[in-house]
Amino acid sequence: MKLSQGAKTLAIPTPVWLVGTYDSNGKANIMTAAWAGICNSDPPCIQVSLREARHTYKAVMERKAFTISVPGEELWRETDYAGMVSGKDSDKFGDTGFTPVKSDLVDAPYVEECGMIIECRLKETVNLGSHIMVVGEILDVKVDEAALTDGAPDIQLLKPFIYSPGDNGYHSLGVMIGDALVQKTPPE
Amino acid sequence: MKLSQGAKTLAIPTPVWLVGTYDSNGKANIMTAAWAGICNSDPPCIQVSLREARHTYKAVMERKAFTISVPGEELWRETDYAGMVSGKDSDKFGDTGFTPVKSDLVDAPYVEECGMIIECRLKETVNLGSHIMVVGEILDVKVDEAALTDGAPDIQLLKPFIYSPGDNGYHSLGVMIGDALVQKTPPE
Repeated sequence: MKLSQGAKTLAIPTPVWLVGTYDSNGKANIMTAAWAGICNSDPPCIQVSLREARHTYKAVMERKAFTISVPGEELWRETDYAGMVSGKDSDKFGDTGFTPVKSDLVDAPYVEECGMIIECRLKETVNLGSHIMVVGEILDVKVDEAALTDGAPDIQLLKPFIYSPGDNGYHSLGVMIGDALVQKTPPE
Repeated sequence: MKLSQGAKTLAIPTPVWLVGTYDSNGKANIMTAAWAGICNSDPPCIQVSLREARHTYKAVMERKAFTISVPGEELWRETDYAGMVSGKDSDKFGDTGFTPVKSDLVDAPYVEECGMIIECRLKETVNLGSHIMVVGEILDVKVDEAALTDGAPDIQLLKPFIYSPGDNGYHSLGVMIGDALVQKTPPE
């Protein structure tokens, strides 16, 4: 039997990504986001939803650019911290020990310690109420050489983690369970 | 050293969700989606990106409604199949053995075998190129009684799985690694 949980953002799983920006003073900042996902194939686009009051939102609007850094599970404490304080009052790169690297394609920094980073140019915004959805066009994805298998990003080496709104917890990735896009006949 | 992978939709992880709709003939249909995510807190909203040619896109436009069913990892073959054929030519509920249940809040069916389902009213669409992003307002989330712990959806019982574009694979969830939204001081 299914029980109603009400009109809530309980969908699982959600990604845990770091949004990198430069603010109006040129300070590198990161913000943790879980309201996010891929949203278009051609051109490749990614969306992340931000509250208008956030330091990161203002920076994205000014620079028309942001990065997504995908932290591995070993960075969950630093990543959680980056979602708890504002870049207005704190130096989150300094506090976490993360290294900011200027993207060579867009006017935003990424986190060197993250195995996968995504460079985005602001494409459009959609005001949905509490949050403004920021859609970025992906200009490049860069991956640590050590996290590539046969030239492709290996999720079992990158070890991203996910957020679960129901228990307010971070959860690791498990094992590969199957190949996608192969079941052309119904399973027996 | 980070190596460029080009402008590609490689962000990880992505969810694997089933979008449920009724078409113009009233036939219940599902489509697998990974270009999706939560996108607003108040009102609670979720986005899923669909190609305009898809049977599901037309159905969402007609009925102004859809559901998201979150399959557990044991349903990965059925879920993969639902992404490989079109509801135009096939009865995906019949083929997979899934049971369609009419949502009591919106004009769309959900998958009874999925432990978490989300009922959505179409809020808006954003044409991004290859895909049209469909934003739905979440009217309710329903969860199997057996998948609740202390009244909240338990991701370790629901066992959703994720898609990894880099290896084109499905991967299971691992263990809980920490509580979110607690690190108010930088980790040591």
